[in-house]
Amino acid sequence: MFPAAEGVAPAVTAVFTTVLTEGPISRVALARRLGLSSAAVTKAARPLIEAGYLEELAATERTGPGAGRPASPLAIRADREFFVGVKITGDELIGVVCDLRAQVRASAHRRLDAADVDHVLTQLGELVGDLLDGPGDYRARTRWLGLAVSGDVDHSTGLVRYSPFLRWHDVALAERAEKTTGLTVTVENDVKALTTAEQWFGEGVGADSFALVTVGAGIGCGLVVNGRIVSGAHGVAGEIGHISFDVNGPDCHCGSRGCVEAVAGADAIVSQARAVSGRPSLTFSDAVSLARSGDAAVGAVFARAGTAIGAGIAAVANLVGPARIVVSGEGLSAYDLFEPHIRASFQRQAFGAAAECPLSIRPLPFEEWARGAAAVSIKALVAS
Amino acid sequence: MFPAAEGVAPAVTAVFTTVLTEGPISRVALARRLGLSSAAVTKAARPLIEAGYLEELAATERTGPGAGRPASPLAIRADREFFVGVKITGDELIGVVCDLRAQVRASAHRRLDAADVDHVLTQLGELVGDLLDGPGDYRARTRWLGLAVSGDVDHSTGLVRYSPFLRWHDVALAERAEKTTGLTVTVENDVKALTTAEQWFGEGVGADSFALVTVGAGIGCGLVVNGRIVSGAHGVAGEIGHISFDVNGPDCHCGSRGCVEAVAGADAIVSQARAVSGRPSLTFSDAVSLARSGDAAVGAVFARAGTAIGAGIAAVANLVGPARIVVSGEGLSAYDLFEPHIRASFQRQAFGAAAECPLSIRPLPFEEWARGAAAVSIKALVAS
Repeated sequence: MFPAAEGVAPAVTAVFTTVLTEGPISRVALARRLGLSSAAVTKAARPLIEAGYLEELAATERTGPGAGRPASPLAIRADREFFVGVKITGDELIGVVCDLRAQVRASAHRRLDAADVDHVLTQLGELVGDLLDGPGDYRARTRWLGLAVSGDVDHSTGLVRYSPFLRWHDVALAERAEKTTGLTVTVENDVKALTTAEQWFGEGVGADSFALVTVGAGIGCGLVVNGRIVSGAHGVAGEIGHISFDVNGPDCHCGSRGCVEAVAGADAIVSQARAVSGRPSLTFSDAVSLARSGDAAVGAVFARAGTAIGAGIAAVANLVGPARIVVSGEGLSAYDLFEPHIRASFQRQAFGAAAECPLSIRPLPFEEWARGAAAVSIKALVAS
Repeated sequence: MFPAAEGVAPAVTAVFTTVLTEGPISRVALARRLGLSSAAVTKAARPLIEAGYLEELAATERTGPGAGRPASPLAIRADREFFVGVKITGDELIGVVCDLRAQVRASAHRRLDAADVDHVLTQLGELVGDLLDGPGDYRARTRWLGLAVSGDVDHSTGLVRYSPFLRWHDVALAERAEKTTGLTVTVENDVKALTTAEQWFGEGVGADSFALVTVGAGIGCGLVVNGRIVSGAHGVAGEIGHISFDVNGPDCHCGSRGCVEAVAGADAIVSQARAVSGRPSLTFSDAVSLARSGDAAVGAVFARAGTAIGAGIAAVANLVGPARIVVSGEGLSAYDLFEPHIRASFQRQAFGAAAECPLSIRPLPFEEWARGAAAVSIKALVAS
């Protein structure tokens, strides 16, 4: 059993979190990092070692000033416990099994014939069974299931308040999924889940602030400021897609016009590409192919989208000043068409030293969303 | 002497800060608010009472469930210590004396003939003398001087890295002003100073997050997220003035175009009003008069400026989701011309529940900037 579940000192949680996200790390470095005495670190690590969550690596000789006893770094035993993560979309479930370090060990997909809650839960139950009872024998060491859903999610209660793509209103998803699967369930907004994965296991490790921008059907943003994910006092935050980009631009589904998403969302790109190409049944893939084959008008649609995204990212940098910004998402399968325009627009619109903020622009495997869901459940274990 | 200066428990600072910003407050309420025992609160309050910073108000009878001994609320003795705050602009020093609760007790102005550091320091010394040695006899109970300057300021060292209006580069302002005045000096960016005053003594009290937007020569923004002022990992934050509003709009001094400030800054308004009125020497006041007298073209300039400001504020609400937003600044002397357009644009561009964020739109007396400078020094006393 994870010791934190039995009500232990904050030092245990701090030690475990630090080894998890920054380890392997010596007790001396841990003590310095956490402002604890060496004795307190040793005491906090003991129950974690006994429960099999941490292990001591072989001692390494230390050299240089202050070299004393050889240091035995503490490391996570990643296969001590496994976590299922599932991203629920309108037409598909994507599931993964992750270890304690959020490394993907297995994955599986399920098509959905409908998005009603009963059907989704039935499919979810079967998907979880496939993942846990297949090769790898993860069942015995898995207690947690993380779910990620787009839209307005109350993480603390596991309630999906509103998910536009699923057309769900006030679904007690955690409760129902616990009944279906027998696992302890966390539910989180998909962008926040992905942000959690970056914060704990990706480019956000050690950063007091960073932003994750997702480009796809919508343009989203997860923000970490002062070490914590920003949720918004009124339940809204990170809506980079609805920053004004062009006051005279196209109408947006939000009721305004010229929003970043109204120019750069996947639907917006398709409809603009249809208009300029005169092909009313053009798909997103068709648009990408046309632009790559040199169609200047369709290429300009992607260029303008990249410019809008860059301006939105610059707004994040100008307002919040994150240490770094990761730009990712399914839309970046067309990375080559967007990337130079995102960077040029960001550089133009970032104010002064805000332009020094590093941008990582990279495609996002769809599985990453499911890994984000698993990362939320790992975080929940640690906080439990 | 303030007890915190002698190295005391964090509980003393917590008790003092809470009574300062939320008092008068009973020990019982303090204990609940801070998660301390009643004994710990009593112990922490004792040195503050002995040093004259806190006092017990007369006991009030408690009624209702749980009523026991009469509660004697703790309150700040506001006149225990005074603080000078000075805002330094390119052509004027504005100074105030504040008490511990940041109430203005006295104020004075000094015109500057030049903005070079020597001249400014000479004038500053005389202004501080006028304030402290005039009526009120504040000298004996004043140890701190807060300075506020626009531009890039390193608060921790008191260095003004760059102030465009003053044309200062790398001025060790705290050090030099301490020599001139004999006081302990804090230096802060002017928008951050104003944000500190709102956070500790204004509409930000008790809010985990809020934003202060200033409208004047520039359009600035101070942000508090998770209870802390956002400074930006690269030294830039709150630059609402350089969010893109109209990708096809006028050039901005930052090198981009169509920024909020390029449409709504005071200079931008004057130059647009000159263009539409055909009067090349029109001033900001002239533009306000024309718009108020019904000139439709000049009125439209203010309307567009208000629309740009509203879109910028909506970007803050959409990205960060503050509990509330205060909009203020010298520009809001023309409040009537801006306000309806700021609100309409905010409502249009705020996404979903972000539109529920309350906006306080109000003019800002210029003295408020100096009060903000004093508030930073009060905060420094508490943290010392």
